[in-house]
Amino acid sequence: MTNINKLNETHDLTLKSWVTSANQANSDFPIQNLPFAIFRRAGSNEAFRGGVAIGDQVVDLACVAENKLFSGDAALAAQACTQPTLNQFMGMGSDYASALRLALSRALREGADKSLESCLLAQSDIEFELPATIGDYTDFYTSIHHATSVGKLFRPDNPLLPNYKWVPIGYHGRSSSIGVSGQTFHRPVGQTKAPDAAVPSLGPCKRLDYELELGIYIGQGNEMGDAIALDDSDDHVFGFCLFNDWSARDLQAWEYQPLGPFLAKNFASTVSPWIVTLEAMAPYRTPWTRDVADPQPLPYLESETNRHQGAFDIKLEVLIQTEKMRNEKQQAKSVSLSNFSYSYWTVAQLVAHHTVNGCNLKPGDFFGSGTQSGPEPEQAGSMLELSCGGKEAIDLGNGESRTFLNDGDTVVLKGWCQKEGAARIGFGEVSSTVLPAKI
Amino acid sequence: MTNINKLNETHDLTLKSWVTSANQANSDFPIQNLPFAIFRRAGSNEAFRGGVAIGDQVVDLACVAENKLFSGDAALAAQACTQPTLNQFMGMGSDYASALRLALSRALREGADKSLESCLLAQSDIEFELPATIGDYTDFYTSIHHATSVGKLFRPDNPLLPNYKWVPIGYHGRSSSIGVSGQTFHRPVGQTKAPDAAVPSLGPCKRLDYELELGIYIGQGNEMGDAIALDDSDDHVFGFCLFNDWSARDLQAWEYQPLGPFLAKNFASTVSPWIVTLEAMAPYRTPWTRDVADPQPLPYLESETNRHQGAFDIKLEVLIQTEKMRNEKQQAKSVSLSNFSYSYWTVAQLVAHHTVNGCNLKPGDFFGSGTQSGPEPEQAGSMLELSCGGKEAIDLGNGESRTFLNDGDTVVLKGWCQKEGAARIGFGEVSSTVLPAKI
Repeated sequence: MTNINKLNETHDLTLKSWVTSANQANSDFPIQNLPFAIFRRAGSNEAFRGGVAIGDQVVDLACVAENKLFSGDAALAAQACTQPTLNQFMGMGSDYASALRLALSRALREGADKSLESCLLAQSDIEFELPATIGDYTDFYTSIHHATSVGKLFRPDNPLLPNYKWVPIGYHGRSSSIGVSGQTFHRPVGQTKAPDAAVPSLGPCKRLDYELELGIYIGQGNEMGDAIALDDSDDHVFGFCLFNDWSARDLQAWEYQPLGPFLAKNFASTVSPWIVTLEAMAPYRTPWTRDVADPQPLPYLESETNRHQGAFDIKLEVLIQTEKMRNEKQQAKSVSLSNFSYSYWTVAQLVAHHTVNGCNLKPGDFFGSGTQSGPEPEQAGSMLELSCGGKEAIDLGNGESRTFLNDGDTVVLKGWCQKEGAARIGFGEVSSTVLPAKI
Repeated sequence: MTNINKLNETHDLTLKSWVTSANQANSDFPIQNLPFAIFRRAGSNEAFRGGVAIGDQVVDLACVAENKLFSGDAALAAQACTQPTLNQFMGMGSDYASALRLALSRALREGADKSLESCLLAQSDIEFELPATIGDYTDFYTSIHHATSVGKLFRPDNPLLPNYKWVPIGYHGRSSSIGVSGQTFHRPVGQTKAPDAAVPSLGPCKRLDYELELGIYIGQGNEMGDAIALDDSDDHVFGFCLFNDWSARDLQAWEYQPLGPFLAKNFASTVSPWIVTLEAMAPYRTPWTRDVADPQPLPYLESETNRHQGAFDIKLEVLIQTEKMRNEKQQAKSVSLSNFSYSYWTVAQLVAHHTVNGCNLKPGDFFGSGTQSGPEPEQAGSMLELSCGGKEAIDLGNGESRTFLNDGDTVVLKGWCQKEGAARIGFGEVSSTVLPAKI
């Protein structure tokens, strides 16, 4: 296996690209990043295919394959990226992803022969599709701050359940309604029951919320019955994206017991188009710790490697742009800043736990991290938390305020890694807009 | 739309087939049934393709298409069934399924020209695959008897939650581990916590259970945002099968709060190979009633048609065959007999509820009905109920008994419809076997 969690020449901070937009200090997509997406020219009938971001351009991998610009494993990987989804490429495993990354890094560096130039398109001219056919989507619940805050609202007497600190809590979500950034959806309709009402009623959701999550794509899968050991999990994770897991809080409160969320969560979920590979994240691995007062993990969720570098330092931000802001050409308003390193469980622990019972993962399967709220109130990853269950309005700074989302509101999630001594690794953004209910 | 819920010439009780095994009184597959599967010759490298059961034979639909034996919509439908899954055929809608059924019924009748004879294979010589790529699997909870019994065990003070009689409770399940009859799987490993233990531990499941369910395949899907009205649901249901939703009760008890079952359910689930179409079920539609003391459904779950013929009279049986029984050539022991007509919610209500929030269903998506326990203790659809939470052993009649499943146990589910004045409509069976834990 390629050691994708160690630094190598592709991470070298001094590397510059002959695609000069990639060298700007604030670019999400320097030559050290090289995230993957599925795209085609906007408005065209072209086949969707794989691409890699560099600065404000995208490398068309179908073009790379057709022109035989790479050789060996990198060529095989590029060939797999000519498909309309990345599932086949993801399933080839980290050796192939790493070989393609290295070939791209070398071909895009200052001084390289610019043979890739004819395969570049401007990102402003493309449109995206879902990067993978998601066979199964699992949503986790890894922020103890979110779990505690939400628990207080749904179960005041019993906010954090006794299993939370032992079990990486997760549940299966709906894959059919996952869309890529730009997704719009109608405000969901459903049953709700006000605390003082005798009976429930059907109507548009009154407490529509976003959830700030990290998305995780599975690479190589496992056979049914074969658990993935904690320290092997890197070989089964392709990469990360941003994920907005829209939630209808009033539907959720009425329906979720005893079998969990259903219609409150399955009407829409939105992913960012670019997938940052696990290898690109190597400089941003950080130690994972567990408070000494808390139970330490069972052995299948515990290792030196996981303690040493199981967490990731990924900054996460939520912005809201109302219809009024759009009409008045105002920027979206930032309402929350959090970090994935606050997660109570690591991605490796999620993989190990998900498969310990023999459950099989397939290439392109998707995990949501769960809402990534930090320890401070202003780091909350949902409006449910920011508005204290709808009791305190969130000031949007332009005379508008919200407790939950209005029709016409656009929610934008951003993510990036940045620190001294390493290149900025950006996730781009995921943006989607609420349309009025269809009732 | 074809009126697939009305009786037509394909249901005529007096019809006989020139495939004489179909005319035996106890055949699951008379000419009035004509269920679909995906198959190939056992042990061959042939491509999997669609087939229809008639007596002890299967009509090879790839052969029918290749030889152009049908015309019009039936020919188009047969062509779609040359694929290795039925998703495309399911997505064509009930008009096409109905046209193919009618063409098959006419071609297989006594007196027909036997042009199909060269497309028949013995069922004893074939093997099956999953009939569809299941994009999303939703498990419901439609038996109030099961919900109440299990609720008493998990929540003695609060067995049936206040939402049960208003909301058709469901949750998303795992599709990657769904297999077809003949599936074997290793006893799952997972975290459990005994009531008297200070901390949880990892180990093989000690309370492994089956669940007797009806499976429902979606035909034509709906666009995101467009709810399917209750009385339109027949146009979106392809047909029914038997479904065993294996459950690890000790894992479930520890993990399921607050987001529902996860590893307790996603290690394996098994479907029967044959899908009985909704049209074949027309003679067995029955009125659906709601106890007058119970809340009546909200308007989106209420209609004359649903009251008149929303339920289905389908007999369901569970049998266990232990390793000892197999070694001693003993038949499987019947442990439970139930009926889908006990369901608190109809299939049409499940479809209407699932989509009322705008959630999109796709062809080949799958619903589990939830465990179909009847009102009497011996009609329970799980061992958890039959053994009163593991407290009372189930006598298997050969000196063996069980509270939960042992390694080597095979569980067989059977289903059939039978009454005066209509042909027997059989579902065949689903059978699968527990292997020892891999730990």
